[in-house]
Amino acid sequence: MTRAGRILPAVEDRRGFLKRSVALAGGSVAALAAPRARANGDPAILKIPPHSSALGQPVAARAYGLPSEHETSLQRRESPGLTRVSQASVAFAPLQGMFGIITPSGLHFERHHQGWWDVDPRQHRLMVMGMVRQAKVYTMDDLMRLPSVSRIHFIECGANTGMEWANVSVPSVQYSHGMLSCCEYTGVRLATLLDDCGADVKQGRFVLAEGADGSGLTRTIAMERALDDAIVAWGMNGEMLRPENGYPLRLVVPGVQGVSWVKWLRRIEVGDQPWHTREEALHYIDLMPDGRHRQFTSIQECKSVITTPSGGQALLDKGHYNVSGLAWSGRGRIKRVDVSFDGGRNWRTARLEAPVLPKALTRFNIGWVWDGAPAILQSRAIDETGYVQPKISQLRSTRGTRSIYHNNAIQSWRVAANGEVSNVQVR
Amino acid sequence: MTRAGRILPAVEDRRGFLKRSVALAGGSVAALAAPRARANGDPAILKIPPHSSALGQPVAARAYGLPSEHETSLQRRESPGLTRVSQASVAFAPLQGMFGIITPSGLHFERHHQGWWDVDPRQHRLMVMGMVRQAKVYTMDDLMRLPSVSRIHFIECGANTGMEWANVSVPSVQYSHGMLSCCEYTGVRLATLLDDCGADVKQGRFVLAEGADGSGLTRTIAMERALDDAIVAWGMNGEMLRPENGYPLRLVVPGVQGVSWVKWLRRIEVGDQPWHTREEALHYIDLMPDGRHRQFTSIQECKSVITTPSGGQALLDKGHYNVSGLAWSGRGRIKRVDVSFDGGRNWRTARLEAPVLPKALTRFNIGWVWDGAPAILQSRAIDETGYVQPKISQLRSTRGTRSIYHNNAIQSWRVAANGEVSNVQVR
Repeated sequence: MTRAGRILPAVEDRRGFLKRSVALAGGSVAALAAPRARANGDPAILKIPPHSSALGQPVAARAYGLPSEHETSLQRRESPGLTRVSQASVAFAPLQGMFGIITPSGLHFERHHQGWWDVDPRQHRLMVMGMVRQAKVYTMDDLMRLPSVSRIHFIECGANTGMEWANVSVPSVQYSHGMLSCCEYTGVRLATLLDDCGADVKQGRFVLAEGADGSGLTRTIAMERALDDAIVAWGMNGEMLRPENGYPLRLVVPGVQGVSWVKWLRRIEVGDQPWHTREEALHYIDLMPDGRHRQFTSIQECKSVITTPSGGQALLDKGHYNVSGLAWSGRGRIKRVDVSFDGGRNWRTARLEAPVLPKALTRFNIGWVWDGAPAILQSRAIDETGYVQPKISQLRSTRGTRSIYHNNAIQSWRVAANGEVSNVQVR
Repeated sequence: MTRAGRILPAVEDRRGFLKRSVALAGGSVAALAAPRARANGDPAILKIPPHSSALGQPVAARAYGLPSEHETSLQRRESPGLTRVSQASVAFAPLQGMFGIITPSGLHFERHHQGWWDVDPRQHRLMVMGMVRQAKVYTMDDLMRLPSVSRIHFIECGANTGMEWANVSVPSVQYSHGMLSCCEYTGVRLATLLDDCGADVKQGRFVLAEGADGSGLTRTIAMERALDDAIVAWGMNGEMLRPENGYPLRLVVPGVQGVSWVKWLRRIEVGDQPWHTREEALHYIDLMPDGRHRQFTSIQECKSVITTPSGGQALLDKGHYNVSGLAWSGRGRIKRVDVSFDGGRNWRTARLEAPVLPKALTRFNIGWVWDGAPAILQSRAIDETGYVQPKISQLRSTRGTRSIYHNNAIQSWRVAANGEVSNVQVR
């Protein structure tokens, strides 16, 4: 075997890993069932596993497939006590065990205001009204006959990484950055619908989007943005949206915080001023050091995080590691990601995996040889506008420590001499 | 309502659709629960659905998410009688109801030679041997420490659309083209492993890949291709491979027919000549008109198909439709897709959705106003090498009618005056 060290995939896997280390000791040759090895007659090597001899499962054993039974610990998780009821809470995506840029729909993060429903698409309607020549009500079938587009975009809750504002270091990247996902969305451009209804896009400078769930969530969106790249989407990663992601219809507002991506979308209204709804006047506002609130801070600024290794994982040996992470910007494409292994003193540029798409996650990778000494890992993203992801001290100097939303600071992971990785704050 | 017509999502949905048409008649206003409408006091309009008032499901109600209960008819399906046992058969992907380019892992097509297993990743090993300086055995943990890449590629079984060679028109695109999927794969380049073992890449002109399932499937791959873009992959669409797609390790050979994407990959051997294994000498060969066999025909040539509308669906009204489909080429990027609505006499160029990636599916869309008369829909793809997808008559003139593999002919869907869509062969 070339290398003995391992990275633990998740906090929750820890106990399992220690057990499996023991089970594996010295077992690698016996477990190998390559024909050449089998042929030499060594009884230890003749142990052919059942899957290499017997008949397996038939095709379509599961008409809709599921992950391996060995992967059940990789799941989205609620943070207990974060909110008073689980219907108005968050389930975080397990970024520490994920690859590439596509979030499998089964692991997409969840954030609801009054729980989710599996809404009947045959009964669902979308009304477009307000400052339009002709208000219209669309069925799902109506919408699916209109010109459609497919685009890959990230979605991030504005409160992602919110706990870190005030020196709270949550243990793993699942809880620090897991309100983040990236999917391929299919639907009709909101601009197409507004055109179909003859919206007054000069006087009507704003659009209201309203969801059909009990919270009746409503958000104001600037007309400029509505006409740009917003999508009224039914498709997500090749199939219909999942119920907990707004099935059968959600608004996709690329680059903008998740709360504006209204789920179970039932109404679009065109108006000449912002509505100042609950979710934009009382919540999703940024409390500044001077006591004032910043409102309508929609864009998710350039940000990145190392996902492997990350808090709760452990390096069990010196040597080479593939350090991997995600970068994204609500303003366009990622231009560069730098990685530091000494807490920000020295930086090396990481490899970006193609495709690098606007307002989508970008995967980066960089090789690192760990010498066994304590280290602090950081990533710093730069987007195509030239914006550089800030340090937490820079953010705090402008915005104080009482914010919840829009923390895009550089994340630091400390690797201890025993290989354990933890969340630390580096000013 | 703007438009009354509908496209049926799938053959299997037909009965359901007819029922739902009745249920919906005149029900659209009552079902709408927009606040403005509610406020006017009309009792019919006051029917607020439960999901717009009551508390819904909590977050993480399902730690690993599943599709809506309204989407259960969209599933992969076996073609009964195609093979003698379901462990050596095919489950087709339901392209007629899919969007974009990413295939959700739960709907990825299946093709096994002796069934699938959920192989324990802690026991799984990959041996690299043969003409190498040092043979090595890798654990999954070893592999995941190496430099990794993430790339989106299509996979198509060489036998996809094989029934159409001999005038058999299968009813739906699921069965005619459903051995096709496209995912984001993450793993280590095969070139990295070969370098790690000091492979002799000059004398060793070929690589053998072997799977760990009971069929011990083996395929020869040219060294040039192995060093180019082949990946030893563990990740698929952001998570670990699914068991039926080779968990925990499969070979990804972009542009090449699926049989070479060896699942449950356990061995790579470097050699100086092809192995002529069963699956490349007896099967996966093309019987030509003169009785000879073409062997080692790996590349999936440029091809496209309209997925909506397609066989088994029905247009229920005249008017505008979004005609959508997929194009792909084993030789690189798609350059253009043309669509005909009159059986190939006139062609219009479709819109390609971004990103257009090499050796990946490309989604195309084009608007069409159906006048109610019978029509024949076709798509014709052109790749960046200038290769044009052929007509079936062109293919047959060279390769006869006794082939099974590598049918990349233009597909024709006939729309009858009653709106029903069926598979027809147009020479």
